[in-house]
Amino acid sequence: MNLGIIIYIVSLSTIILSFFLLLSTGVAYFYKTFEFYKFLLSFFITFFTGILGCFFTRKFRYEELRHREAFATVTFAWITAAFFGSLPYLFTGTLESFTDAYFEAMSGFTTTGATVIADVESLSKGILFWRSITQWIGGMGIIVFALAVLPFLGTGGMQLFKAEVPGITVDKLKPRIVDTAKILWFIYVGITALIVILYKFCGMSLYDAICHAFTTISTGGFSTKNNSLSGFNNPFLEYVVGFCMILGSINFTLYYFLSKGDFEKIFKNSELRFYFFLLLILIILVSLSLKLTTYKTFEESIRYTFFQIISIITTTGYTTADYEKWNFFSQIIILFIMFCGGMIGSTAGGIKEIRIHLMFKQIYKEFYHLIHPRAIIYIKVEDKILSKEILESIWTFIFLALIIWILSSIILAASGLDIITSLSSVASALNNVGPALGKAGPIETYAFFPNLAKWILIFCMLIGRLEYYTVLVLFIPALWKK
Amino acid sequence: MNLGIIIYIVSLSTIILSFFLLLSTGVAYFYKTFEFYKFLLSFFITFFTGILGCFFTRKFRYEELRHREAFATVTFAWITAAFFGSLPYLFTGTLESFTDAYFEAMSGFTTTGATVIADVESLSKGILFWRSITQWIGGMGIIVFALAVLPFLGTGGMQLFKAEVPGITVDKLKPRIVDTAKILWFIYVGITALIVILYKFCGMSLYDAICHAFTTISTGGFSTKNNSLSGFNNPFLEYVVGFCMILGSINFTLYYFLSKGDFEKIFKNSELRFYFFLLLILIILVSLSLKLTTYKTFEESIRYTFFQIISIITTTGYTTADYEKWNFFSQIIILFIMFCGGMIGSTAGGIKEIRIHLMFKQIYKEFYHLIHPRAIIYIKVEDKILSKEILESIWTFIFLALIIWILSSIILAASGLDIITSLSSVASALNNVGPALGKAGPIETYAFFPNLAKWILIFCMLIGRLEYYTVLVLFIPALWKK
Repeated sequence: MNLGIIIYIVSLSTIILSFFLLLSTGVAYFYKTFEFYKFLLSFFITFFTGILGCFFTRKFRYEELRHREAFATVTFAWITAAFFGSLPYLFTGTLESFTDAYFEAMSGFTTTGATVIADVESLSKGILFWRSITQWIGGMGIIVFALAVLPFLGTGGMQLFKAEVPGITVDKLKPRIVDTAKILWFIYVGITALIVILYKFCGMSLYDAICHAFTTISTGGFSTKNNSLSGFNNPFLEYVVGFCMILGSINFTLYYFLSKGDFEKIFKNSELRFYFFLLLILIILVSLSLKLTTYKTFEESIRYTFFQIISIITTTGYTTADYEKWNFFSQIIILFIMFCGGMIGSTAGGIKEIRIHLMFKQIYKEFYHLIHPRAIIYIKVEDKILSKEILESIWTFIFLALIIWILSSIILAASGLDIITSLSSVASALNNVGPALGKAGPIETYAFFPNLAKWILIFCMLIGRLEYYTVLVLFIPALWKK
Repeated sequence: MNLGIIIYIVSLSTIILSFFLLLSTGVAYFYKTFEFYKFLLSFFITFFTGILGCFFTRKFRYEELRHREAFATVTFAWITAAFFGSLPYLFTGTLESFTDAYFEAMSGFTTTGATVIADVESLSKGILFWRSITQWIGGMGIIVFALAVLPFLGTGGMQLFKAEVPGITVDKLKPRIVDTAKILWFIYVGITALIVILYKFCGMSLYDAICHAFTTISTGGFSTKNNSLSGFNNPFLEYVVGFCMILGSINFTLYYFLSKGDFEKIFKNSELRFYFFLLLILIILVSLSLKLTTYKTFEESIRYTFFQIISIITTTGYTTADYEKWNFFSQIIILFIMFCGGMIGSTAGGIKEIRIHLMFKQIYKEFYHLIHPRAIIYIKVEDKILSKEILESIWTFIFLALIIWILSSIILAASGLDIITSLSSVASALNNVGPALGKAGPIETYAFFPNLAKWILIFCMLIGRLEYYTVLVLFIPALWKK
C-alpha cells in the first residue's frame, strides 16, 4: 500500500472541502451571525491541514493509483471530510460532543440525513447552510465515485457502466476520472440550479430554496425546518419536491444522453423502467390503504404517499407525514423499500434498483432452467450478457448488505434499543435514508441513541455509501502488505 | 403433466397416512376416550379415499415419474396429508373452523409446531397423540424428500449430496427412492426409540416420552403441556431435550456413516463444524447477556439459553423461557437464527447451515478476488469444487427465502398485525420453527390471527418445508402443458 499517494489525494480533497467552508463563512457573514469567525477558524484549520498534507507527500503525486490505493483513498476522503466537517458544529457550540458532531457531519457527507438536532430552526443560517452543503458535496462526490471510480475497481457490478460515460477508455485511472468528473459536475450544478429556481417559484425564500436544492439533488434530506417539508404548508410544493427527489435518484449518465438528444438510450434503460414501475405500484397500493385507514380525501392520501414513498425509496428522507401513524402495511413497506434505493450512478443509496431487478431475473432464470434443464440462459441488461463474475459480485453485494444489516442491528439491540428501532435505523443508515421507525421515527432524532449505537450507524452510513466493498476490503490485512 | 401418476402416488401416501390414523384410533381406545370412533371415521374416510384414488389411476402406476411430476407429487402429498390430518380436529370438535384445523395439521406435517390451541392439556390423549405423530410423519417424509428426491430435481443445491447416500446410483428415480428410504426409515425409527428411552429415564411418563420423542426427532415442537418443556419442571430434562433436538437437526446420512464406523466422514463434514461453531458462539454470547440482565445465576442463564437457542435454530420450537422478556439483543438473535436452521438432509427447516456457510465463502472469495484479480478461486465443500450451477441455485434459494419473507410479511401487516409480529411469524412459518415474537410469542398462540394471515402462514410453512422451488415451480404455466 502506497500511503503517500493516498495522503496526497485526501489532502487535496481536504483543500477543496476548505473552500466550501470559506463559502459558508461568507454566508454566515452575509447574515451577520456573530459566529462567522468560527467558520473562518474551521476553514483555516482545514485548509492548512490540507496544504501541509500535500506538501509532505508532494513527491508521491505522480505515482500510480492502483486498486488498493483507490479503495483507501475514497474511504479516507469520506472519513476525513466528516472530521473537518464536524468542526463548525463543535466551534459554534451547536453540538457539544464530538460523537454528535461527527455523526451529523458523516450523515451529511454520506447524504444520509439522519440528525441529532431536534430544533434546527433555532440554528443560525450559517450552520444550516453548512449542514445542507455537506450533502451537496457528498452527492457530487458519490456521483464521481460511482461513475468514474467504481467501474474500474471491479466491485459490485458497477462494471455495468464501463465505457458508458464519455471520456472513459481503457486508459490510466487518473485522466479518466478528471474528464468524466467534469461532465458530471456540469450536469450536477445545472440540475441544482434548476431546482433552486423551481423551489423559489413555489414560494420558498432564496435561502431555503438553495439549502433544499442542495439536499434534494443529493438525495440527502436535511431540511431547514423542524418539520421538514411539511414546515412549508404548501401542497403544491410537496409534489414539486417529490419530482425533484426523483431527479437525484436517476442515473446521471442518462442526463448526458438527454443533453445529446439520445432518447433511445433513456427509453431502453431497463433499470429506469423497473424503477418507475415499482414506484407506481407502491404509490397506488399505499395510497389506497391510507385512504381506507388514515386520510379522509384521496388527494391527501395520494399526496402524502407520493411524497413519502419517493422520499424513502430515493433515500432522501424528507418527511411530510408522520408515517409511524400510518397502518402497519404502509410502515412495513417503508422499512423494506429503504433497501431498494434509486438507480445505480445516482446520488441515491441502497442496494439500487438494477441489483433488485437482476435478482428477479436470476430467480426467473433458475425456474426456467428447472423446466428446460438443457436450455442455456443468460442474464442480460439491455441486450448485453452479464458475465458470471459481474453477477457473482452483485449477489455478494446483496449478501454483504444483508449480513451487515443483521450484525449491526444485533449490536444496536445490545446497546439497549428495541428491535424495530434497531432494524430500521441500521437499514436507514446503511441505505443512506435518514429517518427510520420506532424511536428513530420521522418526528424524532438520533440524539438520545447510546454512543455505541451512533458509532455503528456512522460506520453503516459510510460502508453503505461506498458500496460495502470499498470500505470492507481495507480490513483485509493482505491489502496492506508491501 | 401426467396427472395420473401424481394422483396414484398421492393416493398411496394417503393410504399410508390412514394407518397412522388407525394407530391413533387404537391410542384413543386404549385411553378409553369416547372419541375413538371419530378417529375411526377419519381413518375410513382417509383410507377409502386413498383406495379409490389408487383404483382409478392404477393404469398409470408403471409410468415414469419425471421432474415435473415429482414436484407436483411432493407438494400435493403434503397438501392432501394436511387435509386428512385436519379431520380428527374437526370431528372431535377440538377445532371448529376448517382454517384452524388445517393450520394445525399443516403445522404438524411441516414439522413447524405453530399452534392455534392454547390449552392443550384439556385435550384428550388421542388428539395429542395424533398431533404429535403428524410431526413424526412429516419429519420422516422430509428426510426421504430431502435425501432421496431433492438431489435429483436439481434445486437449491441439494445436489451436494448426490451419491452420498448408499443405494443411489445413476438409475431410475423410483427404485432409488425406495432403497434410500428404507435405510433412512431405519435410522429415524432407531433414534426415535432412543429418545423415548432417554425421556422416560428422565422422568416423563411413557405417553409423554413417546409424544415428545415424535416431535423432537422431527424438530416439530408440539408438546403435550401448555407450557411446553417448562411444564415438566425438570432442569436435567431440559439439557437432555436440548441434545435430542440437535439429533434431529443433523444430516441423517451422518448417522449412516456413524453406523458404519466411518468417523472420518463425520469429522470432515464442514457443515457440522460450522453449525456447532455457530451454536457455541450464540450460546456463549446470549447466556452472558442474560446473566447481566435477566437471570441471577449462571446455571439458569446457560440452561435457558442452551435450550432456547437450540430449540429455535433447530427449528423445533419448544420453549422453557418466555424469551419475549429477554433483552433486545437476545430477541433479535432469536429472530435471525430462525433463518439459519439445522443441517441439510435433516428434519430441520430454515435456509440450512451449509447455505449460510457457502454465503460466507462466496464473500471471502469475492474479496480475495479484489486483492488478487488474476487468481482463480473455487468454492469447495469437503474438497469437492461446487459447480457454477449449484452455487447459482443456492444463491437463488436465499433470494427466494428473502423475497417470500418480505412479501408475506407485507400481507400479514395488511391484515392488521404489527410489524414485529408480521416479520417474525412469517420467519417462523417459512423456516418451520413454531413460536415467533410479538403477538405470536412463546406463550401465545396463532388463534387470534385473521384468516388471511393464517392461510398465508399455511402457505409459508408448506413452501419453506419443501424448499421453495418444489412448490413455486408449480405456479409456472409452462410446467402444466402437455
